[in-house]
Amino acid sequence: MSEPQHQDLTDGTERLATHRDVIGLLGLIAYTELSTFGRLAADAANAPTLAQRHQLSRHAGKMLARHERVLERIADLGGDPEAEMGAFDGIFDDFESRTPASTWWEGVLKGYVGHGVADDFCRLAADGLDDDSRDLVLEILSDGVDSERSATVIADAAAADPVLASRLALWGRRLVGEALGLVQTLLAERDGLSRLLADGASHRTDAGTPGAADATGSAADRQAWVFSQLTAEHTRRMARLGLAA
Amino acid sequence: MSEPQHQDLTDGTERLATHRDVIGLLGLIAYTELSTFGRLAADAANAPTLAQRHQLSRHAGKMLARHERVLERIADLGGDPEAEMGAFDGIFDDFESRTPASTWWEGVLKGYVGHGVADDFCRLAADGLDDDSRDLVLEILSDGVDSERSATVIADAAAADPVLASRLALWGRRLVGEALGLVQTLLAERDGLSRLLADGASHRTDAGTPGAADATGSAADRQAWVFSQLTAEHTRRMARLGLAA
Repeated sequence: MSEPQHQDLTDGTERLATHRDVIGLLGLIAYTELSTFGRLAADAANAPTLAQRHQLSRHAGKMLARHERVLERIADLGGDPEAEMGAFDGIFDDFESRTPASTWWEGVLKGYVGHGVADDFCRLAADGLDDDSRDLVLEILSDGVDSERSATVIADAAAADPVLASRLALWGRRLVGEALGLVQTLLAERDGLSRLLADGASHRTDAGTPGAADATGSAADRQAWVFSQLTAEHTRRMARLGLAA
Repeated sequence: MSEPQHQDLTDGTERLATHRDVIGLLGLIAYTELSTFGRLAADAANAPTLAQRHQLSRHAGKMLARHERVLERIADLGGDPEAEMGAFDGIFDDFESRTPASTWWEGVLKGYVGHGVADDFCRLAADGLDDDSRDLVLEILSDGVDSERSATVIADAAAADPVLASRLALWGRRLVGEALGLVQTLLAERDGLSRLLADGASHRTDAGTPGAADATGSAADRQAWVFSQLTAEHTRRMARLGLAA
């Protein structure tokens, strides 16, 4: 595999490469959290009951708090929070336009699936960072958010209504397909992310993680590996909702 | 004027009446803040620029934090937060359906004007509480929110575009008219709020505040007085935006 930028940066200046890459990844996370906040808050405002409005609004508030922590972290690391976030402005537009939700439930599931895939992708990318930076990103991605609880609104409704559950299961498959399309675009267009995933894959090979070998190969192999990881997580996520993946 | 509930409660049990009324008013504030949060967050998600998305999202987050503080306060006072908030569920539905925003700017101004009138109304009602409770409500209503800053998105745009400014000024007049209609409904349907305003008016007469005399009279006089207060605040608010009221 030939990636000139990667070669240059690891050539005696690995620290700098990691530093820039972690800031870039934090920019993606900050942008994702802001988008998730907006989506969740809008879903909350349109929720069928006041209790659901309240629950989803609180969850949105946690996303915004996380967003703020990420921005602070970018500044701590010497980055420009607005610029790092702005580098990803619009990345969800295509995904959004391709997945118009026809019901409130579809909208909520879209947020849940989309945010889940985004978080998982950022976790995989974080594997390519040095230990301290990786811990930082993983702490941010798991801080203050109980995914199980955030999903209860959907899980409860699906359990009570088999027809809704069946429709949402179908919708979930559509959503994850579109989300993987977005990941594909990011991998093709953002060298930093691709580099982190390649580095992470080599770390995993060292640790003997099964399946990691493929990710150290060509860009196509790496993408296939990322997709398999994201799909597996998606399947687990849907199962937690009581939906067939 | 004859208000049996008021007579019963002030008959040697004034503390209890105040206690119930403050909890009721906090329920209205909690519901208002949750609604404002949802509106602001949705406006934020659709903002023209990332900087505006960010600014409005942050402002929405402050509203949600305020909402949480109010709920805590209701619990501290022995009330049921969900029930007190739920007592006002749906009060904005009619206002919303009567004021469909045709542009993003109209939606933002609607939130600003609607929330401003709601806050001012709650401040007037708080005058009818005992000193401690009133301080509590006023502290909540002014805590953590810099109205001037939240309005900069509109003010900046209005300053740059006279046609937009003129349209928004017209829209603002429409909005305040509909907001006063909502206040009228609340006064007619919620005895506790009407009682607080009557009590507040008598306090103000004691203090020699000009114009307060009318508010101690009939329900119609009191409503006229409330409208004049809310309209005056609205005029000041529009002026801060650079818009003609």
